[in-house]
Amino acid sequence: MKVTVIGLGLIGGSLARSLRKNGLATSLVGVDTNARHANEALKLGLVDQLMTMEEGCAMADLVVLAIPVNAAGQVAVDVLDLVLPKVVVADMGSTKEAICKIVEKHEKRGQFVAAHPIAGTENTGPGAAIEGLFADKVAIICDREKSSQAALACIEKVFRVLQMKVISMSSKEHDEHIAYVSHLSHISSFALCNTVLEIEKDEKNIFNMAGSGFASTVRLAKSAPSMWAPIFEQNQENISAALAMYINKLIHFKKLIDEKDIEGLASLMSDANEVRRVLKGIELNDNQ
Amino acid sequence: MKVTVIGLGLIGGSLARSLRKNGLATSLVGVDTNARHANEALKLGLVDQLMTMEEGCAMADLVVLAIPVNAAGQVAVDVLDLVLPKVVVADMGSTKEAICKIVEKHEKRGQFVAAHPIAGTENTGPGAAIEGLFADKVAIICDREKSSQAALACIEKVFRVLQMKVISMSSKEHDEHIAYVSHLSHISSFALCNTVLEIEKDEKNIFNMAGSGFASTVRLAKSAPSMWAPIFEQNQENISAALAMYINKLIHFKKLIDEKDIEGLASLMSDANEVRRVLKGIELNDNQ
Repeated sequence: MKVTVIGLGLIGGSLARSLRKNGLATSLVGVDTNARHANEALKLGLVDQLMTMEEGCAMADLVVLAIPVNAAGQVAVDVLDLVLPKVVVADMGSTKEAICKIVEKHEKRGQFVAAHPIAGTENTGPGAAIEGLFADKVAIICDREKSSQAALACIEKVFRVLQMKVISMSSKEHDEHIAYVSHLSHISSFALCNTVLEIEKDEKNIFNMAGSGFASTVRLAKSAPSMWAPIFEQNQENISAALAMYINKLIHFKKLIDEKDIEGLASLMSDANEVRRVLKGIELNDNQ
Repeated sequence: MKVTVIGLGLIGGSLARSLRKNGLATSLVGVDTNARHANEALKLGLVDQLMTMEEGCAMADLVVLAIPVNAAGQVAVDVLDLVLPKVVVADMGSTKEAICKIVEKHEKRGQFVAAHPIAGTENTGPGAAIEGLFADKVAIICDREKSSQAALACIEKVFRVLQMKVISMSSKEHDEHIAYVSHLSHISSFALCNTVLEIEKDEKNIFNMAGSGFASTVRLAKSAPSMWAPIFEQNQENISAALAMYINKLIHFKKLIDEKDIEGLASLMSDANEVRRVLKGIELNDNQ
């Protein structure tokens, strides 16, 4: 399978690495408007050659989009305009409703698959690409009834070869749930960092007094603004609802602390402890 | 050195394990009002024998308190009442101002050292005790001018043998900083879990859609309510200020999202990214 990857960052680069390793890709073409990233990806051997989008689309069986979500909609349209009838185009972004709306009426909609592999790290760029990033993770396919059987079969084969578990849901459902289980975690981390860095002008105090707990809680705050600002914009409505609910929980927590309501606090924390059961499954699958 | 450990949970148990391993403790006595914990600790070989507090204090060179902070103040007084003049008593709790006030006027105040080893995991009980938990971590000694030279020398030797870096500050300063770099992270995690568990009634959605990012952000939400409720109560004033600031940051974040202010969001996230530099040091020291 000849694969063209548009966007040679963590996701595109890791995908290229994994598809080369398992032999599914017989040719790997890279497209990236960031020349530094493009050259780094080539140098790292993530792709065989660099091309323009037109060239990359002309020779591919599969075109994968792994670019920030604010660019993905227009690029998806441009790529669908360019490709021949049997070529499959798949998007890997973290929001799905907007892009699905943009390509909805495209005559080649059937060739397009809206996907979201739930995998990543807080690192960015081709240098962060990891072979095996996707193994044992979940890949979500959205609005699958809009994709042709052939396009679905192609993408499912790719995910299977990457050792992913494939699930399906509507793009609307995807964006609602992902706001809570992923996007909100990022905001909570970013805001926690902003708070601590603002108050602790002398970073020695953070360095000396913060333990592994702090490091774990703020890990996501290292994530790239250029990737996340567009996600927050596109999923504004769902994230705003999630964030409002989170803020209310914190206000309630603060009230109990101010009232020194030990029992109320213990009860909230016991409820939260229930996450242990859920996380057990995630952590078994995941050593990132 | 004959060591009596009061409280055989994660911290007390790990301390016992480490002091046995490095040979500093020639005898290890355990005291715990929770009979199940006490017996488990004995069975795991964390301590040589179990005793009452009176017995344990009568035969120790060093008595270590590793119990919830709401109990530690009174137990510190009781232990100081019991011990002979050369015995050192050290507390390991996560809040230091309250306990320092309680023992302030005690005639044996010099024998007491208020310490806080910055080490731990989200797990609880003797079964969670880890040898080497303290290696390469920081231990904070508070209000050191109130402790005798002999008591300080004893505790510093213990921390040195545990391979800890010792720093000193006032108990007031300790509680202020720790509210931001530790206590706030816990609340942010607990409240995030409460939010996600409330909205995602079907836990399959969390299981399928949450990645390592969510797992990392909510790791601390597995922590024990019985330990944390008293910490929140004792450090109420500082935590309340930290939490108010965090809530304001989140409200600001939400405003920018609602306004789809991409530049404003990117700028907040860039500021938060600065934590990368600080974390580098912590993570090098810490693979918990």
